Amino acid sequence: MAVAVNVYRGDAVESSHQGHIAVVDVKGRLLYAYGDPYRLTFARSAMKPFQAIPVVETGTADRFHFEPADLSLCCASHSGEERHRSRALSILNRAGLGEETLVCGTHVPRDSDSYKQLIREGRELTPIYSNCSGKHAGMVATASHMGEQVETYHLLDHPVQQRIMDAVADMTCYPQENIYTGVDGCGVPVHRIPLANMAWGYARLASPGCMDNPLRQQAVRRIAEAMVAFPEMVGGNERYCTDLMRAFKGRIIGKSGAEGVYCIGDRDLGWGIALKIEDGGARAAYAVMSEVLRQLGIGNGGPLDDLKPYANPVIRTMRGEMAGRIQAEFVLDKIESTQLSRSTH
Amino acid sequence: MAVAVNVYRGDAVESSHQGHIAVVDVKGRLLYAYGDPYRLTFARSAMKPFQAIPVVETGTADRFHFEPADLSLCCASHSGEERHRSRALSILNRAGLGEETLVCGTHVPRDSDSYKQLIREGRELTPIYSNCSGKHAGMVATASHMGEQVETYHLLDHPVQQRIMDAVADMTCYPQENIYTGVDGCGVPVHRIPLANMAWGYARLASPGCMDNPLRQQAVRRIAEAMVAFPEMVGGNERYCTDLMRAFKGRIIGKSGAEGVYCIGDRDLGWGIALKIEDGGARAAYAVMSEVLRQLGIGNGGPLDDLKPYANPVIRTMRGEMAGRIQAEFVLDKIESTQLSRSTH
Repeated sequence: MAVAVNVYRGDAVESSHQGHIAVVDVKGRLLYAYGDPYRLTFARSAMKPFQAIPVVETGTADRFHFEPADLSLCCASHSGEERHRSRALSILNRAGLGEETLVCGTHVPRDSDSYKQLIREGRELTPIYSNCSGKHAGMVATASHMGEQVETYHLLDHPVQQRIMDAVADMTCYPQENIYTGVDGCGVPVHRIPLANMAWGYARLASPGCMDNPLRQQAVRRIAEAMVAFPEMVGGNERYCTDLMRAFKGRIIGKSGAEGVYCIGDRDLGWGIALKIEDGGARAAYAVMSEVLRQLGIGNGGPLDDLKPYANPVIRTMRGEMAGRIQAEFVLDKIESTQLSRSTH
Repeated sequence: MAVAVNVYRGDAVESSHQGHIAVVDVKGRLLYAYGDPYRLTFARSAMKPFQAIPVVETGTADRFHFEPADLSLCCASHSGEERHRSRALSILNRAGLGEETLVCGTHVPRDSDSYKQLIREGRELTPIYSNCSGKHAGMVATASHMGEQVETYHLLDHPVQQRIMDAVADMTCYPQENIYTGVDGCGVPVHRIPLANMAWGYARLASPGCMDNPLRQQAVRRIAEAMVAFPEMVGGNERYCTDLMRAFKGRIIGKSGAEGVYCIGDRDLGWGIALKIEDGGARAAYAVMSEVLRQLGIGNGGPLDDLKPYANPVIRTMRGEMAGRIQAEFVLDKIESTQLSRSTH
């Protein structure tokens, strides 16, 4: 049992979370690990940067005049703030599509002010409020650009999802035939991949130069640049992804996934880091990633200081008094040169 | 590692939860267990029925004409529905107190219709919306009835909390000096107790006849009767506590606690059941309790059929399509006569 995080109330442990961590370099060498670095893990929204690759490679982004902020929004699990909703609608408009084409469904957005305003105005939640509306806008825009049926873009056998499957397999160096897919909360396929391969994929996202295919190299670089240049599009106000990328000023690409997944690409070291909280507890993921960065000496004395609230979350009463804390408590194992097998496509 | 629940996406496990379970009879014999039945656990809101004992024993309930539904609300983690808010206010009014005396703070209530109405009317959340407002109303009413300072009722050394400490220790047969206390989300002391003692306390709650002190016996019986007679006050619409007690028609007393705690008292068998999800994941608690009842043959072919949605939760997409399921997967260990040590006060 690999406890990664203890949740304290007062000075006593109330709950604990197990975690799995993989740190991989661009050549696919497992450098550090904790728990099971090969754990088969639904990557969830951590794959969004890879799911955006076909938006660029198909020419969809150029055809519909995507700005970098649009591309960043395609990689987002956003908070449903006005800037997110209006940009997602703008992408749809430029593609000649309406919000009704999105099959992501909807949910109460993280941005409570946007939700209250909607209630006050007597309006109903629409798909544009979904944290995935940017990703879906990119998908339907791609289907439209390619002259493919738009209504079925979410189905696994649709070219939109097949191109994504190819990109995910290529980026993570994991055989497509080994990728088990489920359905994500937003209705599109999710990919189950070993944690170490998710980390490898982010190492490659952080160092596009490693890729042989010049078109893919160009697309991946454009997506990475967009995310770090417009981090507010990836998350929103007081969101870890946004504050992390801001604090590291372009060095780090970070993206969360549901059920306690987080992935980072370090553009200086060319390393990828992937973690999964075994029970899916999102509250533990940011504390664990912050501790991984600290132990690896990434951002100490600088960016990590700006991220303390995520590294050491405080548990407060409803009146704001401190009642406990969330504490990452693990030590990464240094691995002696383990080469992941690279799949060939 | 004692996995109690697997969370599936499609046919693959996405996340898993560990759990700890204790089944104890009224004599304090540990009958069944899983994981660590002695795990020191913050009982959180599962102690509410015991926290209500002084409301009766001090004469507060009679002085302020408590109906059974009022007493049930004192044991509640309610959804903030109109019937909950108006009854909590009524208790306060009868005690000559206002809502401003409650220190529980507030939060968005589970009843989304009540929240939307509040937003539409441009009002702010108040303490009465807190799921703990009934418990706090009982506490301040008691302080007022006893002529004690009302403002400080939430502090551990206040007579209100000291009487509760005595009741919790007596009900769970755990030495008061061994009970570590933290601060709950609503600002009052929470009690850390071995899981088996929490179960023992619920066995005693289910069979008040076992108690020597006639006043306590009377108070405990009155609280138990109130909870099963007015289960809608303990939770609300589509809440496990409410639907569980309804389905069992008076046989079962059930109460949830934050961070994956659930306790049950079986009034037929005189057994208590307590469980804790190690990571605090509430989504796993109901599935685990449902499976415990099934394995113990409590309610099979009858009440448990009405509770299937809690026993086998379905994970759906935002559009309502099935994407996965939450599955309890464990086998209780039968214990050969282990007598818990009874503390003496």
